[in-house]
Amino acid sequence: MQFSAVNANTSVDVPFEELRHLSVGDARGIIRANRYAGHTAGIGLGRVQGNLAIVPAEFALDFARYCQRNPKPCPMVGVSDTGEPMLRTLGADIDVRTDLPLYNHYENGELTGQRRDIKAIWRDDLVAFVIGCSFSFEEALIADGIRLRHIEEDKTVAMYRTNIQTVPSGKFAGPMVVSMRPLRREDAIRAMEISARFPHAHGRPMHFGDPAQIGIADIGRPDWGDPSEIEPGEIPVYWACGVTSQVAVRNARLPLCITHAPGRMLVSDIPSWDAGLAVAPAA
Amino acid sequence: MQFSAVNANTSVDVPFEELRHLSVGDARGIIRANRYAGHTAGIGLGRVQGNLAIVPAEFALDFARYCQRNPKPCPMVGVSDTGEPMLRTLGADIDVRTDLPLYNHYENGELTGQRRDIKAIWRDDLVAFVIGCSFSFEEALIADGIRLRHIEEDKTVAMYRTNIQTVPSGKFAGPMVVSMRPLRREDAIRAMEISARFPHAHGRPMHFGDPAQIGIADIGRPDWGDPSEIEPGEIPVYWACGVTSQVAVRNARLPLCITHAPGRMLVSDIPSWDAGLAVAPAA
Repeated sequence: MQFSAVNANTSVDVPFEELRHLSVGDARGIIRANRYAGHTAGIGLGRVQGNLAIVPAEFALDFARYCQRNPKPCPMVGVSDTGEPMLRTLGADIDVRTDLPLYNHYENGELTGQRRDIKAIWRDDLVAFVIGCSFSFEEALIADGIRLRHIEEDKTVAMYRTNIQTVPSGKFAGPMVVSMRPLRREDAIRAMEISARFPHAHGRPMHFGDPAQIGIADIGRPDWGDPSEIEPGEIPVYWACGVTSQVAVRNARLPLCITHAPGRMLVSDIPSWDAGLAVAPAA
Repeated sequence: MQFSAVNANTSVDVPFEELRHLSVGDARGIIRANRYAGHTAGIGLGRVQGNLAIVPAEFALDFARYCQRNPKPCPMVGVSDTGEPMLRTLGADIDVRTDLPLYNHYENGELTGQRRDIKAIWRDDLVAFVIGCSFSFEEALIADGIRLRHIEEDKTVAMYRTNIQTVPSGKFAGPMVVSMRPLRREDAIRAMEISARFPHAHGRPMHFGDPAQIGIADIGRPDWGDPSEIEPGEIPVYWACGVTSQVAVRNARLPLCITHAPGRMLVSDIPSWDAGLAVAPAA
């Protein structure tokens, strides 16, 4: 596996602690100047963040249908015009080529590079999809006084492949990926209620309790992210996860696709709390 | 203006009063057999209904983007594969060629025919979009004891072009269309709360009160549907309307497009109340 343009995920010029206190516009300016390549959790608080998937136009209609058919893991929060790098519906001046901290570059489903911007490889036939992520509802849970262990411990949330198959579209298919948060029962109930108000950020949970029931063999070994201890009195609660879209894009083995690097989301100008919800029924 | 295949909107073989007491599957069977061409309000109660827009594949990505960017008037509840008439995510055996009571057929933006099925004109390059409609939240309002005058008087809800422009995509653009319901203030507040839970059916209202503020010159003269008297103590409440998508499709002057005839929606198998919400932020 070769990495081009940057060495790995570690090039941090401006410290996270500085970025998290900046306005969303100022933080985006630092990211755009390639002065921050870290994760975006806690940056631009109160704004919708999103997973990125850029695909050639010939596959874009199928991918739009994939997202429409799988709205819980893959809620579409923005789609660019073909060849147009500006995401005008997500902010005044968001350029998808420069405004994420770090990008993954895939050829035929294999990771072939990581870049801090994609100006040099942008093409007139590319379409950028932005898919909601869990940061929006996590902010609301924390504001409600619910403690999220992975955030308190500065870890990445635990994510798992499940035995729930998504609804396919064209080349796009694969298992639903979920993220898991251990919660006390009273917090779990409240978290279900609150997250349900964020359908653009995966909405209410998919499952709680027994991991085997959704095909998770060992809850101590997540497929992505860090394991999270489940303490006495806590139950694991599982939400649909945007990594589902990344798996589907890789499964499709497109000649080219570009995604955000894990945790390095697009930070939009759209308020998290009320994103002018839209829709699609689940199958 | 020429009409092919059927004369007008009046060919009703099985009476509405009979259909409304049937299961959604039985009602669909009668529609499929071309034995009902009337409106679908009240048929298959408790199931998501949708506006239909069928466009050639070359325009489908732009139309998907149009819906994504305008989620309140145009929530995508289903999209067919290219050339595939079965809408598998909306029900077990829904065939978009036969399962609506009446279709409008447009060439270059002009209505050129009305048909009870579109089997003879279906093509391998067509893509069918189903867009949420207000019937879902109206059912919930009625269940809550809110009286809706247009339903009690067996009229079509009043609809208006506004001065609110939708976010364009490719050839698709135009004003937002709203539907208006006169409500007592206490009912209006409750209606705002209840309809907000149906983002796949236009969600909360866009506006209430002064029609001039959204560019409606004469509330007594709707652009579509029947006027509705506003009685003392009532205010007009305006919701985004799926006719917006029909206007955008006609504005695009595509060589071919097919829509439902007004009021003759697709009745799906998806429960209205919890359609597994998805999303997209409004601009």
